[in-house]
Amino acid sequence: MKAIQDYYKDSFSQCFGCGRLNEKGHQIKTFWDGEETLTRFTPKPYHTAIPGVTYGGLIASIVDCHGTGSASLALARENKIELKGYNAPRCVTASLKVDYKKPTPIDTPLEIRGTIVEVKGKKVVVDAKVYAGGEITVSGRIIAIQVGNDFGV
Amino acid sequence: MKAIQDYYKDSFSQCFGCGRLNEKGHQIKTFWDGEETLTRFTPKPYHTAIPGVTYGGLIASIVDCHGTGSASLALARENKIELKGYNAPRCVTASLKVDYKKPTPIDTPLEIRGTIVEVKGKKVVVDAKVYAGGEITVSGRIIAIQVGNDFGV
Repeated sequence: MKAIQDYYKDSFSQCFGCGRLNEKGHQIKTFWDGEETLTRFTPKPYHTAIPGVTYGGLIASIVDCHGTGSASLALARENKIELKGYNAPRCVTASLKVDYKKPTPIDTPLEIRGTIVEVKGKKVVVDAKVYAGGEITVSGRIIAIQVGNDFGV
Repeated sequence: MKAIQDYYKDSFSQCFGCGRLNEKGHQIKTFWDGEETLTRFTPKPYHTAIPGVTYGGLIASIVDCHGTGSASLALARENKIELKGYNAPRCVTASLKVDYKKPTPIDTPLEIRGTIVEVKGKKVVVDAKVYAGGEITVSGRIIAIQVGNDFGV
């Protein structure tokens, strides 16, 4: 099963967080999981904040790309786009809010789950929750905006 | 002149964003600049979002560590702590909000400037602005909380 990021065209696939063509990046992958969106990510040992705890800035960046990926999934669904080749809508982040509820352990695979709050034209609002070992450690909200196909080229 | 991060004790210096002992990390440095706090950071060529544009998640993570560093500077000033050795107060982020005003170019040294909004006990609120070539591209607000010396050990 392909992730939404696998349907971004090449010039939209350079992102450090989610670009399939950025060899130094995180290359996260975001899918539908029922009515939620899902990204899995396991921090590297050096992604520490304080020993044993995952760096909040890294989590913010994963929530960010999970948000834009979720927004693209939502836009494709809303606009009845059949994903094939590299035709996925591409969004950028207008606003990112992250609340750290408790320390996120460094040695645990994380699940980032998204809920589509609103799709309005080119704007999508996504709520995200980060789960470590089944517990929510971080919650976030992203406002993503669809960009034109020529954005950044 | 030493940065606030140079006064964190070793176990507080492992952070991917700002730890002086994290060899794979960004090792940002935060200073007073008059009544503002200042961090300088130049994105690497692979820190892209879309070609030519800096990855928003990276900016969020730099704003995050600039925020905790600024909070530590503010707490040291508020509590009349003379910084020496490794005695700096250490904060973690409770909440991070980042608004992307316009694309941040990838090839430009960035200045992140902070304003201390509030210091109340262990809680510090910091506003941040990211400047690229003199223009504000991103603004943010961080709520940071001071942790005990034994946190995460």
